[in-house]
Amino acid sequence: MAEPRGILIKGGKVVNEDFSVVSDVYIENGKIVEVGLNLHVPEGVRIIDARDKLVMPGGIDAHTHLELAFMGTKTVDDFHSGTQAALAGGTTMVVDFVIPQKGKSLLEAYDSWRKMADSKVCCDYSLHVAVTWWSDQVKKEMEIIAKERGVNSFKMFMAYKDLYMLQDIDLYAAFAQCKTIGAIAQVHAENGDLIAEGAKKMLSMGITGPEGHELCRPEEVEAEATQRAITIASAVNCPLYVVHVMSKSAANVVSKARKNGRVVFGEPIAAGLGTDGTHYWHKDWAHAASFVMGPPLRPDPSTPGYLMDLLANDDLSVTGTDNCTFSVCQKALGKDDFTKIPNGVNGVEDRMSVIWEKGVHSGKMDENRFVAVTSSNAAKIFNFYPQKGRIAKNSDADVVIWDPKSSRKISAKTHHQAVDYNIFEGMECHGVPVITISRGKVVFEEGRLKTTPGWGRFIHREPFSEYVYKRIKQRDQVGQPTAVIRKPYDGKVISV
Amino acid sequence: MAEPRGILIKGGKVVNEDFSVVSDVYIENGKIVEVGLNLHVPEGVRIIDARDKLVMPGGIDAHTHLELAFMGTKTVDDFHSGTQAALAGGTTMVVDFVIPQKGKSLLEAYDSWRKMADSKVCCDYSLHVAVTWWSDQVKKEMEIIAKERGVNSFKMFMAYKDLYMLQDIDLYAAFAQCKTIGAIAQVHAENGDLIAEGAKKMLSMGITGPEGHELCRPEEVEAEATQRAITIASAVNCPLYVVHVMSKSAANVVSKARKNGRVVFGEPIAAGLGTDGTHYWHKDWAHAASFVMGPPLRPDPSTPGYLMDLLANDDLSVTGTDNCTFSVCQKALGKDDFTKIPNGVNGVEDRMSVIWEKGVHSGKMDENRFVAVTSSNAAKIFNFYPQKGRIAKNSDADVVIWDPKSSRKISAKTHHQAVDYNIFEGMECHGVPVITISRGKVVFEEGRLKTTPGWGRFIHREPFSEYVYKRIKQRDQVGQPTAVIRKPYDGKVISV
Amino acid sequence: MAEPRGILIKGGKVVNEDFSVVSDVYIENGKIVEVGLNLHVPEGVRIIDARDKLVMPGGIDAHTHLELAFMGTKTVDDFHSGTQAALAGGTTMVVDFVIPQKGKSLLEAYDSWRKMADSKVCCDYSLHVAVTWWSDQVKKEMEIIAKERGVNSFKMFMAYKDLYMLQDIDLYAAFAQCKTIGAIAQVHAENGDLIAEGAKKMLSMGITGPEGHELCRPEEVEAEATQRAITIASAVNCPLYVVHVMSKSAANVVSKARKNGRVVFGEPIAAGLGTDGTHYWHKDWAHAASFVMGPPLRPDPSTPGYLMDLLANDDLSVTGTDNCTFSVCQKALGKDDFTKIPNGVNGVEDRMSVIWEKGVHSGKMDENRFVAVTSSNAAKIFNFYPQKGRIAKNSDADVVIWDPKSSRKISAKTHHQAVDYNIFEGMECHGVPVITISRGKVVFEEGRLKTTPGWGRFIHREPFSEYVYKRIKQRDQVGQPTAVIRKPYDGKVISV
Amino acid sequence: MAEPRGILIKGGKVVNEDFSVVSDVYIENGKIVEVGLNLHVPEGVRIIDARDKLVMPGGIDAHTHLELAFMGTKTVDDFHSGTQAALAGGTTMVVDFVIPQKGKSLLEAYDSWRKMADSKVCCDYSLHVAVTWWSDQVKKEMEIIAKERGVNSFKMFMAYKDLYMLQDIDLYAAFAQCKTIGAIAQVHAENGDLIAEGAKKMLSMGITGPEGHELCRPEEVEAEATQRAITIASAVNCPLYVVHVMSKSAANVVSKARKNGRVVFGEPIAAGLGTDGTHYWHKDWAHAASFVMGPPLRPDPSTPGYLMDLLANDDLSVTGTDNCTFSVCQKALGKDDFTKIPNGVNGVEDRMSVIWEKGVHSGKMDENRFVAVTSSNAAKIFNFYPQKGRIAKNSDADVVIWDPKSSRKISAKTHHQAVDYNIFEGMECHGVPVITISRGKVVFEEGRLKTTPGWGRFIHREPFSEYVYKRIKQRDQVGQPTAVIRKPYDGKVISV
Repeated sequence: MAEPRGILIKGGKVVNEDFSVVSDVYIENGKIVEVGLNLHVPEGVRIIDARDKLVMPGGIDAHTHLELAFMGTKTVDDFHSGTQAALAGGTTMVVDFVIPQKGKSLLEAYDSWRKMADSKVCCDYSLHVAVTWWSDQVKKEMEIIAKERGVNSFKMFMAYKDLYMLQDIDLYAAFAQCKTIGAIAQVHAENGDLIAEGAKKMLSMGITGPEGHELCRPEEVEAEATQRAITIASAVNCPLYVVHVMSKSAANVVSKARKNGRVVFGEPIAAGLGTDGTHYWHKDWAHAASFVMGPPLRPDPSTPGYLMDLLANDDLSVTGTDNCTFSVCQKALGKDDFTKIPNGVNGVEDRMSVIWEKGVHSGKMDENRFVAVTSSNAAKIFNFYPQKGRIAKNSDADVVIWDPKSSRKISAKTHHQAVDYNIFEGMECHGVPVITISRGKVVFEEGRLKTTPGWGRFIHREPFSEYVYKRIKQRDQVGQPTAVIRKPYDGKVISV
Repeated sequence: MAEPRGILIKGGKVVNEDFSVVSDVYIENGKIVEVGLNLHVPEGVRIIDARDKLVMPGGIDAHTHLELAFMGTKTVDDFHSGTQAALAGGTTMVVDFVIPQKGKSLLEAYDSWRKMADSKVCCDYSLHVAVTWWSDQVKKEMEIIAKERGVNSFKMFMAYKDLYMLQDIDLYAAFAQCKTIGAIAQVHAENGDLIAEGAKKMLSMGITGPEGHELCRPEEVEAEATQRAITIASAVNCPLYVVHVMSKSAANVVSKARKNGRVVFGEPIAAGLGTDGTHYWHKDWAHAASFVMGPPLRPDPSTPGYLMDLLANDDLSVTGTDNCTFSVCQKALGKDDFTKIPNGVNGVEDRMSVIWEKGVHSGKMDENRFVAVTSSNAAKIFNFYPQKGRIAKNSDADVVIWDPKSSRKISAKTHHQAVDYNIFEGMECHGVPVITISRGKVVFEEGRLKTTPGWGRFIHREPFSEYVYKRIKQRDQVGQPTAVIRKPYDGKVISV
Repeated sequence: MAEPRGILIKGGKVVNEDFSVVSDVYIENGKIVEVGLNLHVPEGVRIIDARDKLVMPGGIDAHTHLELAFMGTKTVDDFHSGTQAALAGGTTMVVDFVIPQKGKSLLEAYDSWRKMADSKVCCDYSLHVAVTWWSDQVKKEMEIIAKERGVNSFKMFMAYKDLYMLQDIDLYAAFAQCKTIGAIAQVHAENGDLIAEGAKKMLSMGITGPEGHELCRPEEVEAEATQRAITIASAVNCPLYVVHVMSKSAANVVSKARKNGRVVFGEPIAAGLGTDGTHYWHKDWAHAASFVMGPPLRPDPSTPGYLMDLLANDDLSVTGTDNCTFSVCQKALGKDDFTKIPNGVNGVEDRMSVIWEKGVHSGKMDENRFVAVTSSNAAKIFNFYPQKGRIAKNSDADVVIWDPKSSRKISAKTHHQAVDYNIFEGMECHGVPVITISRGKVVFEEGRLKTTPGWGRFIHREPFSEYVYKRIKQRDQVGQPTAVIRKPYDGKVISV
Repeated sequence: MAEPRGILIKGGKVVNEDFSVVSDVYIENGKIVEVGLNLHVPEGVRIIDARDKLVMPGGIDAHTHLELAFMGTKTVDDFHSGTQAALAGGTTMVVDFVIPQKGKSLLEAYDSWRKMADSKVCCDYSLHVAVTWWSDQVKKEMEIIAKERGVNSFKMFMAYKDLYMLQDIDLYAAFAQCKTIGAIAQVHAENGDLIAEGAKKMLSMGITGPEGHELCRPEEVEAEATQRAITIASAVNCPLYVVHVMSKSAANVVSKARKNGRVVFGEPIAAGLGTDGTHYWHKDWAHAASFVMGPPLRPDPSTPGYLMDLLANDDLSVTGTDNCTFSVCQKALGKDDFTKIPNGVNGVEDRMSVIWEKGVHSGKMDENRFVAVTSSNAAKIFNFYPQKGRIAKNSDADVVIWDPKSSRKISAKTHHQAVDYNIFEGMECHGVPVITISRGKVVFEEGRLKTTPGWGRFIHREPFSEYVYKRIKQRDQVGQPTAVIRKPYDGKVISV
């Protein structure tokens, strides 16, 4: 339940994606009731002084893996600690992934994920569903899930050969089904065959450490798969969302496709925007291993700045974290073989700060674009805008009050995640979340969490998101090829 | 004055740049008072049924030349006929250009333009001011104009040698002054020296017809100047706005600069988006001459579609028309020499329809992006958003009600402009403005204009537009180079 | 056997890829014996007056399919008529393809091709071998063929699903084997899965005519596969040769890879340089069908000029024809279903003229670059330079004497190929071959062929072509990754 | 005079730009008399054992400033020490620049340069002539110089404002004159206005050290001017040669123009290929100052590798050094103001080694491409191929015998230049020149120079270089625009 009384946020600068204005915001029953100056509010409401602060839509992390069993172990951050950490960082909603095993029912997996999450989440959340194999059953279940379970996004893996990877022909079928049911196709874009071969090669050369993880899957492996996914999606006129764009070359592929009119969205993540793959060459194994994720961070140190430029310029659209945390003792499963290091990094707590620091403080984007890429665009693409993603009358009261003048230093010692390191360790961040409000309830304040497991609700997302599908539908109407009208050929035909 | 009573637009789909929603809109005293369902409105208000229609912010034409004396004659459309035509096409504001002669006072030119326009305009308007020469006086007047006259944009010509053109060093000074006073630098980007030489060459080869106009200034002449302007602006960290981007290569220059983080905006125009330069080779001289403008339309017929792709993708940002109409008998001044054909085409009336047809109907952009590029972005860049450019509480009631299901055919026979041809003659346009409202007054309805000269007000625009300058300022704060701290050199120095 | 006596070509301009010089050329016993002025030659030699003519290395067509059984029928041009036509056009060597059926021995296929060709060829020739399936036997046979059969190039298909197409993992293996044995990997780069699905879709929409052939495999399908092939080749550091680059986007992929340092060569073909895919929309079915080949010609009419620009600039390297001719009555097998139209076009005769006309006469390239792209580069890549591809002492006397001042019109009525149409019908070509000499024998003169079946010899090509492999080998030596030297991780490891 | 007797180079691998072959080379009277195996040579010739060595055309440094008075002082390397150093590094010819002062006669300057050089040069040389101002006299003198003085290349400065810089309109005129007389237009491409303003700005910010040199002229200043020069050259269909391409962005401009068919050549220099601009931030002033040249080296450390990739790929064509050496005590003229540091670096001695190390040893290019970019291409462009630039019968015996297995370390302590530092200090270079032969005379052997001042001859270069002008002329013939044939306009004309 929400705060017993309303909340009036006074004197802040309300920041939406289109503009900023000094305004008060009044909240009641989990909703924003009014935005304006000199609002009439009931007696006894809580008043938050937001002068010199920014009042922004709470962050939406479009890509997390909380409580995922993977590579023989399970993430240390679950839906409880993970969503707490999110709130501490100014993020008020996460979208996680249901990942069924090959051959298993998507519906059952969905149900089990809901069961796992519903009672623990401290903020609202939703779920993408992965398609890890193909059959008529899978196709049918996708439709049920889209129509009845509130999911409009399905993720396909082009990597993780034998585990999750689909062949092109199955990608085609899955994308076609997404199109039919009004869902967004998501891809993990890396060439799984090349990774598998590359890993064998590195091990055979005696390269067993974390640097081998990057060496076996250089960025062209990512760029190639990204190009392929876009081509397949284009063949069925299906919208595409590329998760974790990690390299300059993959980002360029997305950028170029958008310029050519493709309905494709690229998602860089906090890790890729805030740090780089030089760490894989670090002399301390545990340090190096903590950065292992797929696709890897890139050793070219100009990568993060480049991705941020493209994010600022809407070549890339939206941000997540791929938060998937394994502690050092878990990473150590791969101490003698990088292919056994559980893949994943932190980010759900620090994403907002990292993007503010590297994006806004650096002057690459302004506060409005910050809101777009940390919140509004995710809400639009996944079809819950302006319920979330905007400070406006009738929107959910998911709000972060941000102090652009303060700064903090990121550290595993002080973070709220369960994992025992932080890939952003030591980063000085200008811009600090001071209060986080989830559906009208103050859940983080003065550095302290006030969360309740199960407070968060599952956000039901309808198919055929307008933001994504308007162009798709129009093209289907006006862009169909037609046959040339000809007189039948009446000449000789060779006999075979 | 506004309508005596309020207006309730009922049942339409309200389209803003971020999303669309079926909603009512209530207007009073020239302002939008409320947007929502089940609004409580006074008795006796006029109710407009907008079911199955779109309710959009009125168009803003960021680039017109109404009542311009140029090349020995004067445009046939003045501030009266021009703004009437705008309203008939769903455009509720124009931004025109004050163009002082070389050596003349900018302030006096500004005053004379205001005097000319104020009593005639049927819709709101504003003015950019051109800087056609350089001196301390010009510099000082720019400041006064920005601080006191409501102008935050100054246009510099890189073409029209001897008439308006500035040398690089003066461009630098003008851009630097824009930066100081918080204005946006605008450029007409073509290499004036090359055009002058090219024109001589074409005439010497006996090419005197309209095709010579394009042949003497091919698109690389435009792309070169665009690159140069961006480089100069970058040197002073000044925002730049490239008027009439006419070619693929110039558009690519803008696109790339934006990707690299430059604060630069490209403006394609209706002519460039809706037709092409093959017309210069038309066998009928008058037909060919009617398309003459600078920079020219391009003979590559894939240009308009390409510019639209980039406009859809926010590589290009905002649209105008460069409406500058001369009748055939005026064009005929250049019947024996293309350099004497008065430059200019129509567009102020048809811009919205052309962009809808080629952009939205084609599936390249959706209705929200349409609003952004025809209205909101101009308002943001030139600093009067959300006063205009958005259907929202407290915004000016500049509204167009649009029927996406109807269609009309453009023709000089039926248009409202004074000019005797139409470069879009015969174009079938899906999407028709059915009602236009200017500051709360219905001014176009059932095909009929109900305008009043002088109804329009001058829109005063403050400097340091947030949308443009937030990044600029931040970069000035965090991006300044610093000297390396060194021990002084104490070795031998050669004596000279 | 060669001419009984030597031949002295007098007064011509000898054109090699690096420069041109007026010089005499003396030929004896099939070899060029001397190049220079005032040569001492025996009495009684034949003297050819080449004043005002160009004396160039005979053309090498790197890509033909003479006498291929395909899609239920067999090409009308066999090794006899095909090589005759080549000579009439100034081409003195062809490289054809051995294409074994899936599951069949490469060696046996090679033998049968040799048997078919040896007795018929009127000019020298060589063979590439296709790898249409994968097994240890195939791998072993590739090695034998490279070491003992004079073949250093193997072609893999990414299209023709179920017939010839390899999956990525088999491409990887085949490329790796090419690298090991010093061969060049060749690819037909189109995404076969997408073509198969696209074809079904077109047929389902009632599009059964030749236009469906292009619509089901738009150019991004080619560009995607090209990118994929380059990525896979790069993973094994194997040189790559992309046959029939047919689209701007695929050519751009090759161009960019080369700029990035990849050892990759792109081969445009005469058809793609001389005509375009608008013909698929021709109202006459037989006309449209005659252009059907895979990948298709592109409907964008600026494609040929663009490919020629890239060929001129060495973004593309070498030319072939994919000559694979089926008469109209054979094409008619697909009169009701475009997927049954035998794929293939003419070109072996007209390649030199088409490239001269569109490349040299247009001013895009000079005569030296013409020699490079029609002859020398093929000889270098496939490792028989300067035996062929250069007018120099000790080189084979494969020579064409070219009249750049004459012109001719291409027509099926006058061509020497067996096929009953010509895709270049009516093209006016400046630049005409007046005499063709094959290994010292005049075989075409005054418009008449003087050929002998079996005159041509199989050109044995050694592996590890220097031109291709020097960089490859050096990179293997200096570019290998190495492991980071670390202290073993000695912390806790989670137990699983 | 040449060696009294002939020289037979035995057993080496002769490397030309098109291929390598083990062959003997026989030299007599300054010329290569024969290349082949088992040559018949006179008794008593000197035999050089070149087994396991490469026998290559001597290097041609297309860009030096030996004995230049500049910025108040004079280079320490003159035509004697400079050409000696060249020979020690395997370079057998330099092309220097005549630079007249503004207002001065080009012919007189040419004469004075010849007088200065002829008696000192130890290897062959030629001269480019700079056009530093514009007048009818200059135009006339260009023609005389091209027709009578053996110069076919003229350099125009877009930087060095007030000293050498030309305005666009004068560039246009100079390029047009180059075209008329068959010369190649060369440009120093940087925007001089922006540099002048940038320098003022840096000094005003207290940045007086060498880092200010780069900060006042970032690479976009170079890229802009490069684009502008290409556009102007294109307007007159004049070939263009961009000296010292120093940045990725400028190189990209050249690359793209070539892809679009422009006849433009880019020249990276040894400094830009072998080191970078991070040195300007070095804490030791003298170290930092020694790298000062214009355009500056770039602080992006991936620049040299990128330029080498483009050089390998023929996006860039030819190399020079801009060797222009000032000792530290001369550099110290700018100890308090970077604008007073004499611009220039070394390179004439080390160019061959640096390019071998970074280009060939790295695997980016092979030995044949090395010959093209260090020798043959310069000879072709500037019209003295195959007199130089090729190991072939009748070519000048300018030869370097290269040991690819040896290595040496570059150091000012051991180099042969007069300057007291070396920007490549400490670089380990695989590939060492062991013998250098200048016009048939061994001038460097066993680490010792055996040179004679005045040995070198001025190489007379004819205009209308075929390599450059063949395409230009053809385009003039086939590419001229023509007027549309129209009925005269007979309608009304407004009276003015």
